[in-house]
Amino acid sequence: MLAISIDVGGTLTKSAVVDEAGQALHELTEPTASTLPPMQVPDHVADLVQRLMAESGLALADLAGICVGLPGIVEHRLGLALSCPNLRNWEGLPLADLVTRRTGVTTWVERDANLAALGEAWIGAARGTGYSVCFTLGTGIGAGIILDGRLYRGSWGGAGEIGHITVVRDGPRCACGNRGCLEALASASAVAREAQAAAVRAPESLLWTLAGGERAAITADLVFRAALEGDATAMRVADTAVEYLGIGVATVINVFNLDMVVLAGGMAAAGSQVLDPVRAVVRQRARQPLAARSRVELGHLGGRAGVLGGARLVHLRAN
Amino acid sequence: MLAISIDVGGTLTKSAVVDEAGQALHELTEPTASTLPPMQVPDHVADLVQRLMAESGLALADLAGICVGLPGIVEHRLGLALSCPNLRNWEGLPLADLVTRRTGVTTWVERDANLAALGEAWIGAARGTGYSVCFTLGTGIGAGIILDGRLYRGSWGGAGEIGHITVVRDGPRCACGNRGCLEALASASAVAREAQAAAVRAPESLLWTLAGGERAAITADLVFRAALEGDATAMRVADTAVEYLGIGVATVINVFNLDMVVLAGGMAAAGSQVLDPVRAVVRQRARQPLAARSRVELGHLGGRAGVLGGARLVHLRAN
Repeated sequence: MLAISIDVGGTLTKSAVVDEAGQALHELTEPTASTLPPMQVPDHVADLVQRLMAESGLALADLAGICVGLPGIVEHRLGLALSCPNLRNWEGLPLADLVTRRTGVTTWVERDANLAALGEAWIGAARGTGYSVCFTLGTGIGAGIILDGRLYRGSWGGAGEIGHITVVRDGPRCACGNRGCLEALASASAVAREAQAAAVRAPESLLWTLAGGERAAITADLVFRAALEGDATAMRVADTAVEYLGIGVATVINVFNLDMVVLAGGMAAAGSQVLDPVRAVVRQRARQPLAARSRVELGHLGGRAGVLGGARLVHLRAN
Repeated sequence: MLAISIDVGGTLTKSAVVDEAGQALHELTEPTASTLPPMQVPDHVADLVQRLMAESGLALADLAGICVGLPGIVEHRLGLALSCPNLRNWEGLPLADLVTRRTGVTTWVERDANLAALGEAWIGAARGTGYSVCFTLGTGIGAGIILDGRLYRGSWGGAGEIGHITVVRDGPRCACGNRGCLEALASASAVAREAQAAAVRAPESLLWTLAGGERAAITADLVFRAALEGDATAMRVADTAVEYLGIGVATVINVFNLDMVVLAGGMAAAGSQVLDPVRAVVRQRARQPLAARSRVELGHLGGRAGVLGGARLVHLRAN
């Protein structure tokens, strides 16, 4: 049987038809429908499903189910996003039911970070481990939790808001309203924000050259590139962010007693610039022997972790 | 069937014979054997079991099992404490096997904070909830985690080291070697340490009167009493500690999506002086609707949570 998986991001929507071994038979990437009126969202999803089926020559009987991943707090039993700050038009819709009715195929709605964790545990970095947390480092910081080989959702599906643990009591304001959240200190947007502020005080910084003199063009990506070249301003900003990320990783190791922590999402592209210092912070801050018995690795599936994880969810549920 | 439960604390050992409804038929409290040579510890436990049986007129056939709770990191499948910083003579002994052999009764070894959480979930504050974390606030800060109605232990039994999550990057040194652990900022010993330091700069503080002029006699207990009387120094110390405790509670709510957080252990005796500010911090810092859908309560079982929880563990395992 095949699964259709649709990973709706803040900017792009990735979708795929995936078999039970994790092979994608057909994939699409397109801009997310972020301005569509809410009432049209279910038809939009159903259209995407029809397109994927037509383009890959599938019949209804080939499909085990559909999974829609959303960037927000999801009530998975109700199949809807309670809160979806970057996609308000997808919020509050009983999407699982509405899409099931339109397509005739059982549909599940899941939190995107949970799907990335499922994907990495299925055929990625955490394959073969029972207890893992997968951090998705992007505009925000999401996390998905696998315990005893299964996705952990908490009492009603809201678990994994690790991006919003307080790491600095009076730290910078976070989009969620709190101060000093991990996300406000260690996400790609936090790195960009801190670097833009620091660059103003460092006219000699390489960041200006890389950003073509434009302050708003200083992204996390440029910060890690400039840090690699030895730029002092960029190194300071990157070091601070990555230390807080390490504190977040040490926290989940202490709390969950894990086999593995996976660092995925855009900022994980910085590779050893993120991985090495996070490992060092874990050795220093997580309790022994919890630290020594947990591995920290980069994700293997890149930006496809969520869409592959959604397929895994369908295959697990349908069997 | 009956359970024998032995909760070995840093100072006192509480033991009891407990039935399947949580009624203690016989209880003992005595100083912990903290200086006994390790080789004599299993006999010491077996003697205690024999005494409990004799004093309550039990035969072997009445017993479902024995549980020994230890204050440390426990490998529950091996039935031993990997690390027991305050009771080095109990560390590394395969106590479950050794006590089973001496008594003829199946014996389990468990982390003390896990037992307190089991007790509160069985017949205490978290009764009827599926997802709870029970903080034990004492010399240190322990935590036990109940997920989907069952004790959560992690990959090999080391979960719940919430006392050692970093809440202040460059904070005070913790006994574990790290800096700024929750335990180093919000435990009873942290409160006493901070108050002793603050009192030196505040000769007018009520703390001196309550402590009979003796700096070392300033305990967490006195700090909460002085704060209740409006002493500014005590209030400042208590407020800071309780805010960090609130950050720890908000962290587990964000991470686990809980129904309930229970505050137990010695410092919970300060009642609303701890409970009210912790609830306020949770409202301010945990993500919505995670915060609104979780309750924070004081423990119902006082110092007996661990010994009752140990009995619960036996009854669950034996059935």
